[in-house]
Amino acid sequence: MSSHQQALPAETNSVAGKLFAILSSFATDRSVMRLTDISHRSGLPLSTVHRVCGELERWGGLEKRTDGSWCIGDRLWEVGILAERYAALREAAAPFLGDLHAQTRQNVTLAVLDDLRVRYVDVIRGSQSPSVEVRPGGTLPVHATSAGKLLLAHAPREDQRAVAEQGLARYTPYTITAPGQLLRELCLVRRGEVAYSREELQLGTASVAAPVRGTGGEVIAALTVAFRVMRGGEKFELLVRRHAEALSEQLA
Amino acid sequence: MSSHQQALPAETNSVAGKLFAILSSFATDRSVMRLTDISHRSGLPLSTVHRVCGELERWGGLEKRTDGSWCIGDRLWEVGILAERYAALREAAAPFLGDLHAQTRQNVTLAVLDDLRVRYVDVIRGSQSPSVEVRPGGTLPVHATSAGKLLLAHAPREDQRAVAEQGLARYTPYTITAPGQLLRELCLVRRGEVAYSREELQLGTASVAAPVRGTGGEVIAALTVAFRVMRGGEKFELLVRRHAEALSEQLA
Repeated sequence: MSSHQQALPAETNSVAGKLFAILSSFATDRSVMRLTDISHRSGLPLSTVHRVCGELERWGGLEKRTDGSWCIGDRLWEVGILAERYAALREAAAPFLGDLHAQTRQNVTLAVLDDLRVRYVDVIRGSQSPSVEVRPGGTLPVHATSAGKLLLAHAPREDQRAVAEQGLARYTPYTITAPGQLLRELCLVRRGEVAYSREELQLGTASVAAPVRGTGGEVIAALTVAFRVMRGGEKFELLVRRHAEALSEQLA
Repeated sequence: MSSHQQALPAETNSVAGKLFAILSSFATDRSVMRLTDISHRSGLPLSTVHRVCGELERWGGLEKRTDGSWCIGDRLWEVGILAERYAALREAAAPFLGDLHAQTRQNVTLAVLDDLRVRYVDVIRGSQSPSVEVRPGGTLPVHATSAGKLLLAHAPREDQRAVAEQGLARYTPYTITAPGQLLRELCLVRRGEVAYSREELQLGTASVAAPVRGTGGEVIAALTVAFRVMRGGEKFELLVRRHAEALSEQLA
């Protein structure tokens, strides 16, 4: 798990530091920005942002759109997709995700815990899947997702308390917003095999997550199926558990 | 399509240029390298590589492995995955890929032409799929793949000639290695709806590609199904065409 909380201000005096600060200012929910937004997010003067973005653009790391806004360029995608840690996990998990999707026709994801957020390493959707806004590389809140609850249940106590204490945003009437209730549910999840989110992030959508274990038996990822609530979840629970176990055996 | 051929030597005097040269030295077939490899690939002195890699590591753009080799770090994956052009295409295509995989249980891919290589934007595999070494972000040669032949058939004549003249590597006894033969096949593909690769990249594996068209009707991507040759291809051709057309309609 990388540490996103590490701020960069101390290093932004160097050219590399400025470049990193600019790249770090982009995120799932701000993937297209104007120079003023980038300046605001990175804490760098507009003139610096203008110059460094130009350098990044010439390399292909950023792209300037016709409306004057900026987005991450293809070149960074090509380089970033080579990242080893997630690549190996995604590579190993790919056939299991494919099979699980073929058997359920629902939204199937592989997720890890990353700085107290759920980060989606891979996603397979079908036209019959529920339309939760999740894409590879994107993140969702821990307390409202089945993957998040599963991963947090197996995380250190301090992480659990940090999530409970940082304020639990309400997405639907069913979202767990009381810290004590979340910690109790995490206890139950830790004892069981799977975690559920029942319309806690989006009305009409439920999901079930099962643990993917690494070489030492520790939980390293969550395999999930998201489905419309009226479809019921028992058969999906069975399938997601079976594939998570098979993947864990392969990784062991 | 980004232009990878653009070399960086003229810019490697600047800090940013050095950084870009180092990142650009990583590729699908060299995703883990030693500092000496990076120095060799980037054309930068070892001392410079050592220093800049250290800066990249502190940010999370590179990771040093226990054996002393280096790989791309998670942070770059998180940023790169935000790249707009491919993200929008992958997002639109995702449900079609999911459905196509569920219906075929074979290796399903979405690919674009990128500097005379086939670049895979998305891949879904199952345990019953043939084991072609292709992963999201990876590339394969144009002349030996169905996606490559399909995309090149709809590319400008100069691109076709450039591929034909750059030397056609032989992967199996069935690989097209004669430039004239490739150009004739591209003519046929352009007139038809789909392109095939019949054990041209890997013995025992075939694939069929259908065109995905953008707003102006131009071919922007290829949707493919790869399968073991003994399974036959007619039903896969029908399915891949149907999904490529449905995706094209949505993009139009």
